[in-house]
Amino acid sequence: MLTRIPKQGSGIIFRAKVFPKTLKFFSTTTLNFKPLVTGSGANAASNPQLTFPCLDKLERKNKELSLGILKKHANTLESGPEPAYNFEQTGFKLYRSEKPIFLDNGGHLPEYEIAYETWGKLNESKSNLIILQTGLSASSHAKSHPGNPKKGWWENFIGPGLYIDTNKFFVVCTNVLGGCYGSTGPSSIDPSNNEQYATRFPIITINDMVRAQRELVRDVFGVQKIHAAVGASMGGMQSLAYGWEFPDEVEKVISISGCARSHPYSIALRHTQRQVLMSDPNWNRGFYYGKIPPHVGMKLAREIATVTYRSGPEWEYRFGRNRADESKPPALCPDFLVETYLDHAGEKFCLEYDANSWLYVSKAMDLFDLGDQNRAKAVAIRQQAEENYYKNSNYIPQTSSIVPKKPYSEKVSRASITVEDALQDLKQGMKKLSQTDVLVFGVESDILFPVWQQREIANVLRDNSQGGDVEYHELGTDVSNYGHDTFLLSLNDIGKPVKKFLEA
Amino acid sequence: MLTRIPKQGSGIIFRAKVFPKTLKFFSTTTLNFKPLVTGSGANAASNPQLTFPCLDKLERKNKELSLGILKKHANTLESGPEPAYNFEQTGFKLYRSEKPIFLDNGGHLPEYEIAYETWGKLNESKSNLIILQTGLSASSHAKSHPGNPKKGWWENFIGPGLYIDTNKFFVVCTNVLGGCYGSTGPSSIDPSNNEQYATRFPIITINDMVRAQRELVRDVFGVQKIHAAVGASMGGMQSLAYGWEFPDEVEKVISISGCARSHPYSIALRHTQRQVLMSDPNWNRGFYYGKIPPHVGMKLAREIATVTYRSGPEWEYRFGRNRADESKPPALCPDFLVETYLDHAGEKFCLEYDANSWLYVSKAMDLFDLGDQNRAKAVAIRQQAEENYYKNSNYIPQTSSIVPKKPYSEKVSRASITVEDALQDLKQGMKKLSQTDVLVFGVESDILFPVWQQREIANVLRDNSQGGDVEYHELGTDVSNYGHDTFLLSLNDIGKPVKKFLEA
Repeated sequence: MLTRIPKQGSGIIFRAKVFPKTLKFFSTTTLNFKPLVTGSGANAASNPQLTFPCLDKLERKNKELSLGILKKHANTLESGPEPAYNFEQTGFKLYRSEKPIFLDNGGHLPEYEIAYETWGKLNESKSNLIILQTGLSASSHAKSHPGNPKKGWWENFIGPGLYIDTNKFFVVCTNVLGGCYGSTGPSSIDPSNNEQYATRFPIITINDMVRAQRELVRDVFGVQKIHAAVGASMGGMQSLAYGWEFPDEVEKVISISGCARSHPYSIALRHTQRQVLMSDPNWNRGFYYGKIPPHVGMKLAREIATVTYRSGPEWEYRFGRNRADESKPPALCPDFLVETYLDHAGEKFCLEYDANSWLYVSKAMDLFDLGDQNRAKAVAIRQQAEENYYKNSNYIPQTSSIVPKKPYSEKVSRASITVEDALQDLKQGMKKLSQTDVLVFGVESDILFPVWQQREIANVLRDNSQGGDVEYHELGTDVSNYGHDTFLLSLNDIGKPVKKFLEA
Repeated sequence: MLTRIPKQGSGIIFRAKVFPKTLKFFSTTTLNFKPLVTGSGANAASNPQLTFPCLDKLERKNKELSLGILKKHANTLESGPEPAYNFEQTGFKLYRSEKPIFLDNGGHLPEYEIAYETWGKLNESKSNLIILQTGLSASSHAKSHPGNPKKGWWENFIGPGLYIDTNKFFVVCTNVLGGCYGSTGPSSIDPSNNEQYATRFPIITINDMVRAQRELVRDVFGVQKIHAAVGASMGGMQSLAYGWEFPDEVEKVISISGCARSHPYSIALRHTQRQVLMSDPNWNRGFYYGKIPPHVGMKLAREIATVTYRSGPEWEYRFGRNRADESKPPALCPDFLVETYLDHAGEKFCLEYDANSWLYVSKAMDLFDLGDQNRAKAVAIRQQAEENYYKNSNYIPQTSSIVPKKPYSEKVSRASITVEDALQDLKQGMKKLSQTDVLVFGVESDILFPVWQQREIANVLRDNSQGGDVEYHELGTDVSNYGHDTFLLSLNDIGKPVKKFLEA
């Protein structure tokens, strides 16, 4: 029954004259251009206004936070198979160093604490200590224990008879320097002025983190040589860094889904997360403690990160093109099942991890590079800072180390070093590991730490080897489509070679 | 000369008592916890405060925008090899339909305009028209012409004797419905109330876009059957959609780096961009026209998108681990060369494209699915909307089509259809293309539209073929590491098979 005649009328023709075509679309010349309401603004629009329940929710949260009435977020949210990190971290022990630590980029901490947890027992010869190193957001709570019965992120990997056998080994897992689960980080108090560091915290590196771990290993346990440094993701950077810093103090290194230097692509992915977080007005350049935290920026940053933790094929199987509710119309707020999953992942995390810690630890990952030039520069800067500190009792790192007030302008328009020369530099830098036994794992479906980065570690170590055994395992897509998160999920595929290597 | 004794003293011990360990790190229980300044707050911090030139810059821009004094952003920024889209789009022609268009999700536009540009001449038999379809942010300006001498995004692909030979073909490129380069979109005036649509614009689909294009082809040029529909990226969705909607009206289809249905991984990537943009307070639920636009959200969204347009290996070669200025200390603001590149890419774009258009067109990509169930549902909804419209002269789409006020809750906890069944559904849906000749291109280094999506198109078409020729080309990493942007850069590798296919 198509009886209605398409609308025509003076209103439309009039509009065509008032709004020249070239002004109809957006440009800076029309920024202050307010459309005249020439017709009947009270008339109904052609279509209903979209609603934005996701924004309503953020606004409610802002309000609750400002009133201090935020309830702990419900754990009923569909959390997927990720480990549930502990909202309130407890049950760790604290190592406290009253000696300062000098950092790769010239800053220092006049004193610091490292939170840690342990499983198993140190043997009499003190030869069975394994240091377990964490990823970006994981805490030292790798496994439950009497001090904290909640499940840890590698609950079924560590234990009596398991892949890391606590009948044989004494396992120590630390919270990284710069983090927020008990170790000194941006939310800690700077003893120099008794205020929280916030963004007066110095830039740290992966190598800085492992040097703090080594102080703990020696001071608390009196261990001169550890049996192994074991880590996945950022932990797989740390285990290599431990081998690099203390080649005579570590028997074996295991690096899972890690790398020897961060790739520009990984830097780009983390860059977007940091910029999103820093753009949240509540971040307030790091000074949000005691105020509303940048929960929106953290949520968004975590969502972007979550995209990089898994693989496309896994999500096809898991979410497909299902919408959260097929009976509802499409929306700009989360709508497809995969969107509501990401939304939940961000939501869970946004008040759980300190935003400043995220920024500093994420930056430390970008800066990771065991190439010779980078490490030589870091060592020189650190030694200079230490010397200056002990010469001058009122020492503060020189202002020349402050980022200048205007954005960096490129001194080079493209990479100033060829891919081949960069590889040679990495080989030179990694010679310190030439006598260490190293087990490397790569996962083909990993997007964040692509598999060729782990092949690179193994190839460089093999080329350099002067007695150190290098073992390389790669999990193809026939074994795991879990991407970067494989080490949390495919326990047996990772665990069997780990056990064999540790116990050989 | 290590003479200084590590600091110890009452201040530190006192602090340890005032701030119990469990309160030192961030948790919701400490949200309103303001650290007491027990010591000498006036004392210098251990390290200098970081500076944030990138945030200073955003604040300056906000101020300039609010004062209406923003100058056109300088084009001196390192722009990379991307085509420079025109800041002020001109030189297009306008097709205007005063007939309404009814949409796949039940909304409608009572009238609409489509901006387009042309090259070459329509032959007498009206058999040589090629419709060229654009990606998400590209305009109709594919090539320079007297009306707009600026270079277009496929400048050296189209022209006399070139890959799309304008001596032989009449090429029409349109700006998509929902966009902001002249065609009706969220920044256009709704004739029903003479106000800009903003987020009263209805959700649109790729199929809606091509149905508008087809009206233009018939009304303006009187062409009953086009020679080819050609597109890359979102254009590669449109070309397939054109073949699906009008199988008897298109001779050949070329789909480059496209897909037959958006994958959950691509949806996830676009989801993060949309959420970041919508979280910019200046977005104001779409009602920012005449105010400060959400330039920060747009910048960040574009940066995330840019990460997906290229490949890791290309960036290793192009940026390596170079920092923008090696003589400066590391910073949380853009620092590595790849970061300043992303920053520039976002900067260039953030005032160039309308934020609402970005959201709607991005969503249209997510919704793209030539599977049978999805298309059958869309056709039914659209027909119902059309019927209701002509029955009731004051018709407004029913409120039942409005997104409900609370976030969607999952009706399924995982994909409700197996990967195999979803493929069968796609095969059924794509039978409409079984008699059309189709050329498909895939690029191995593409992250956004992974190569198996193009293999899928080709395989499904071949399985379905009832006379239609299916040709598939794949560019391996030995040919291109340019990822999704390959079609803009590897012209000869794409162009030669395109020319042969079009002229066969």
